[in-house]
Amino acid sequence: MTKGNINVSVENIFPLIKKFLYSDHEIFLRELISNATDATLKLKHLTSVGDAKVEYGTPLIEVKVDKKGKKLHIIDQGLGMTAEEVEKYINQIAFSGAEEFLDKYKDSAKDSGIIGHFGLGFYSAFMVAKKVEIITKSYTDAPAAHWTCDGSPEFSLTKSKKTERGTEIILHIADDSTEFLEEARIRALLLKYNKFMPIPIKFGTKEINDPDFTPKTTKDKDGKETTEPHKKITVDNIINNPNPAWTKQPADLKDEDYKDFYRELYPMQFEEPLFNIHLNVDYPFHLTGILYFPKMTNDLNIQKDKIQLYQNQVYVTDNVEGIVPEFLTMLRGVIDSPDIPLNVSRSYLQADGAVKKISSYITRKVADKLKSLFNNNREDFEAKWNDIKIVIEYGMLSEEKFFEKADAFALYPTVDNKYYTYEELFNKIKANQTDKDGKLIILYASNKDAQHSYIDAAKAKGYEVLLLDSPIISHLMQKLESTKENITFSRVDADNIDKLISKDDTKISKLTDEQKTELETVLKEVIPSEKFMVQLEPMDSDATPFMITQPEFMRRMKEMQATGGGGMFGMGNFPEMYNLVVNTNSPLVSEILETKTKKKQERLINQSLDLARLSQGLLKGEELTNFIKRSYEMIK
Amino acid sequence: MTKGNINVSVENIFPLIKKFLYSDHEIFLRELISNATDATLKLKHLTSVGDAKVEYGTPLIEVKVDKKGKKLHIIDQGLGMTAEEVEKYINQIAFSGAEEFLDKYKDSAKDSGIIGHFGLGFYSAFMVAKKVEIITKSYTDAPAAHWTCDGSPEFSLTKSKKTERGTEIILHIADDSTEFLEEARIRALLLKYNKFMPIPIKFGTKEINDPDFTPKTTKDKDGKETTEPHKKITVDNIINNPNPAWTKQPADLKDEDYKDFYRELYPMQFEEPLFNIHLNVDYPFHLTGILYFPKMTNDLNIQKDKIQLYQNQVYVTDNVEGIVPEFLTMLRGVIDSPDIPLNVSRSYLQADGAVKKISSYITRKVADKLKSLFNNNREDFEAKWNDIKIVIEYGMLSEEKFFEKADAFALYPTVDNKYYTYEELFNKIKANQTDKDGKLIILYASNKDAQHSYIDAAKAKGYEVLLLDSPIISHLMQKLESTKENITFSRVDADNIDKLISKDDTKISKLTDEQKTELETVLKEVIPSEKFMVQLEPMDSDATPFMITQPEFMRRMKEMQATGGGGMFGMGNFPEMYNLVVNTNSPLVSEILETKTKKKQERLINQSLDLARLSQGLLKGEELTNFIKRSYEMIK
Repeated sequence: MTKGNINVSVENIFPLIKKFLYSDHEIFLRELISNATDATLKLKHLTSVGDAKVEYGTPLIEVKVDKKGKKLHIIDQGLGMTAEEVEKYINQIAFSGAEEFLDKYKDSAKDSGIIGHFGLGFYSAFMVAKKVEIITKSYTDAPAAHWTCDGSPEFSLTKSKKTERGTEIILHIADDSTEFLEEARIRALLLKYNKFMPIPIKFGTKEINDPDFTPKTTKDKDGKETTEPHKKITVDNIINNPNPAWTKQPADLKDEDYKDFYRELYPMQFEEPLFNIHLNVDYPFHLTGILYFPKMTNDLNIQKDKIQLYQNQVYVTDNVEGIVPEFLTMLRGVIDSPDIPLNVSRSYLQADGAVKKISSYITRKVADKLKSLFNNNREDFEAKWNDIKIVIEYGMLSEEKFFEKADAFALYPTVDNKYYTYEELFNKIKANQTDKDGKLIILYASNKDAQHSYIDAAKAKGYEVLLLDSPIISHLMQKLESTKENITFSRVDADNIDKLISKDDTKISKLTDEQKTELETVLKEVIPSEKFMVQLEPMDSDATPFMITQPEFMRRMKEMQATGGGGMFGMGNFPEMYNLVVNTNSPLVSEILETKTKKKQERLINQSLDLARLSQGLLKGEELTNFIKRSYEMIK
Repeated sequence: MTKGNINVSVENIFPLIKKFLYSDHEIFLRELISNATDATLKLKHLTSVGDAKVEYGTPLIEVKVDKKGKKLHIIDQGLGMTAEEVEKYINQIAFSGAEEFLDKYKDSAKDSGIIGHFGLGFYSAFMVAKKVEIITKSYTDAPAAHWTCDGSPEFSLTKSKKTERGTEIILHIADDSTEFLEEARIRALLLKYNKFMPIPIKFGTKEINDPDFTPKTTKDKDGKETTEPHKKITVDNIINNPNPAWTKQPADLKDEDYKDFYRELYPMQFEEPLFNIHLNVDYPFHLTGILYFPKMTNDLNIQKDKIQLYQNQVYVTDNVEGIVPEFLTMLRGVIDSPDIPLNVSRSYLQADGAVKKISSYITRKVADKLKSLFNNNREDFEAKWNDIKIVIEYGMLSEEKFFEKADAFALYPTVDNKYYTYEELFNKIKANQTDKDGKLIILYASNKDAQHSYIDAAKAKGYEVLLLDSPIISHLMQKLESTKENITFSRVDADNIDKLISKDDTKISKLTDEQKTELETVLKEVIPSEKFMVQLEPMDSDATPFMITQPEFMRRMKEMQATGGGGMFGMGNFPEMYNLVVNTNSPLVSEILETKTKKKQERLINQSLDLARLSQGLLKGEELTNFIKRSYEMIK
């Protein structure tokens, strides 16, 4: 038997790192700035615990593009390296100085924000550079060092004359990566990945009005005043905000601060967020962040990928699938947590215990915030309901825990703009809207305009009609019907109102049974039976003579199928089914029955049917044009 | 100056490989089966060139789950390894045997389909296994070898008693990866990544009817026949199709073969594809594949991610963004190319020369296929137009080259189901639809039902009316207007038809100028000026008395904004603008003017306005309910 060690040679692994370390080459800049940040934060820590006897000062990180020289410089004022440290940390791939540092200063450095993990970040420079130089001066007395490597595994190390503390990385950009010599590209990258990193990042300079200068105003001989132009001075252009709102305590932030931060995150966004939720937890995981509820539209698809994920203020991704429950991916804002594993598959993420806890913590915080908004300012909550309902309803459908909590604040608006919680609605309607079998019927409309005449008929009976118009509402009704006891939802046009909520009182029909049979015969001659099932009903005499209804069950199943999933298989392809309810107590119906000329009778039935179809939005195209022509004739 | 080599130690790199080699741990199975395939294909090549004096036979790859023993076995019958080869290829991370092989057999092995690249694949086993064994017997006479490694960099290597040629990999699955001991999970992975790999993969067994067995039929004493049950035999269950349709020559495939392959790719899909495009190119890049046009809906978002990308029959991804032009991502099918760089960023892909060529080759092939379909069977092409137009129109908008080619087959359907190419349309309408300024007016409707009365009016003049109802059509019209000379698109309800295409003949108004002034005064008292701009027009006397129109420009800009991009900024928020065209030659309008009682006059105007609004779909809610009530009264 042979024993031995698996081997890895730098000649083999180096080309792989250069090509495949990250699928996105642009990541190199994030990695180098993370290293510069760590070098600065480490120095801060060492000075704070007294292990470095130097002035920490107000260090910057500087990024410079030298387009002519085809070079990119990243310069920090952190703790720097001695030649020995370069040998140790740089010449050994995948040896993490950050881990060693955190090990050594285990307790005191826990919250220092140091980022580095695997010691690979520096090598990402070779994804875009054909040659890399490091010029570095340690905070100790050791002389400065100058390291150079042209991408072969061979490096050279000499002394340098650098006198200021810190490290400068010089990338000699490769020919296939010249995009990284464009100022606009580098600026965009800094804004994408480093916008909120904790050390100020200088990128170029800008002119501002000199704050120490007061312009003089002089009068000429005619008394005309002239003010000299404001003096400008050139200052460093700091591209990042090292202290973003989410790193502060909620108590230190005003409503305006949250709005300012929203504008900082989404500069192209004109609309203000409706409200925000500040996340802040230390145990059993670290997580901070601010989530915003924007105004939602009814389109579920287009609003995702707006939450940004950070680790220690370094931007990671805008895809938080698996970390945030799906219904909350419609929100906006920032989540920052060092406890979310990166570079792992989504299925792994979803199975990870810590991530599960984070996801349910966020769900709970959102539910709690919504509840307190509802309790503290109901009027305001009601005013915002239509802009946020899609998130809440989607959450109720997809997360059982959220469904339970939402009972306290989910609202059911009526067509008259009243807003009830489920419990309030129940108490309000149970006396009047319980049918003879003891079932509570909750009436709703999906469109105030399209179902106006049906809503009118229901309101005439003193019934409340909800206005439920979200795309997923049919699924939510289905869920409520199976959760709450003995209730059912019915759209106002699902049947004639006396049947929708049938009470014990039976209506008396003006027509005898023979007359009804005769009426049926007459109607069936004119009305196409494949389109409408005729139902004779004794209704109030002043109620509409003809009325078209569409049974609830089939319609809802079709709607559920249309909005993806649920419903019954294949039902989406069923034809629409309508009933024609004819009010046997209407004077017009009596007139139809009494009319003796066939032609006039037909005309009466057709015009009535057209009006009923119009009321249900079913009169269209040529039939509508003909109806309008006929009606113009009738005006004259 | 010091010089030296950058160093990498296996202790540092191994944990990284285990955790981060692939973001998706499940990839390990694809990698190991790719290795097994390579081992088999290499043997095939060696026997074919006479370098291996053994029988190639019909080798299989076998995958076995040993749930109780917590082991997964992958067994091939390929060329195997000697102990020395294990030392060379396995103990050295990132040393690719495949590259060495391809170097050696440069010319003959070019099309052998050998997959391996970087020699890292095998190590992906450690992402899911705590211990890995290799038992391998070379096709040469060398004794078999047994390699074991428990995930520390230490390995052991002994002799083995294995006598059959080939390699068996045994993964001792780690506790956090027990999902890979579930048969269903492994089956799903094999079907996802290996469904079309070139060597048969055995996964379990199945029972089939014994083909060599003929059931005997016996008669009992009553003459009743009994057939004995068919005898079953157990056979290998081969999970893949080693010869998928795209690897064959188009000449060898019938229409039914393409449909069968579509069903193989999308077993859950009931609808048949409309047609297919077989891609097959050798120079300047290798690419094969089959693309299918499915029936499209008008929703642009939900149909993506249906094209699968393969490399040498190994599944890579279903995200072909950057490789296929965006408008074609709505298609389905397979693309197989070894020339598409993987693991690179999308922005890199889009800039890569080879990928650009692939993308424009695919665009050209699709355009050519569409043209030949149109030329060879125009009737069929017209019948399919509505199911494919969204792709073609989207392509015309987004790819200039496709726009040019599409002129030959893009169709413009009319409301009467005629289909014109642009040139045919132009020739058909130029005489009748050129206005007095020499501009060609192309009339269209977006909805046959909703715009019926306006379509009628245009047809009465002998004009052709197109039916253009794609969600992006307003953008395409904009593009056509700026490409073709002196044409403009107008929706039929954009103005009164005499104004839409204004000719030299001026219509004479029955009303005098005083009467017109009086009419205007009367109308303005009743008609709300914030909703409608009143326009008096002398039209045909039997044309509609009142008519509501909506100017083309503003409406189209709003539509363009609604479908994302284009249009003029902020216009989406402008209110709808309507004109009320009053036909001064209509008898009803004369009647309005002559009516002396104010109340009756008002009633006439209101009823006429309601009918005009009905015709444009603007009468809704309470106003519609009231109109219907009034109309029921008028019937009686």
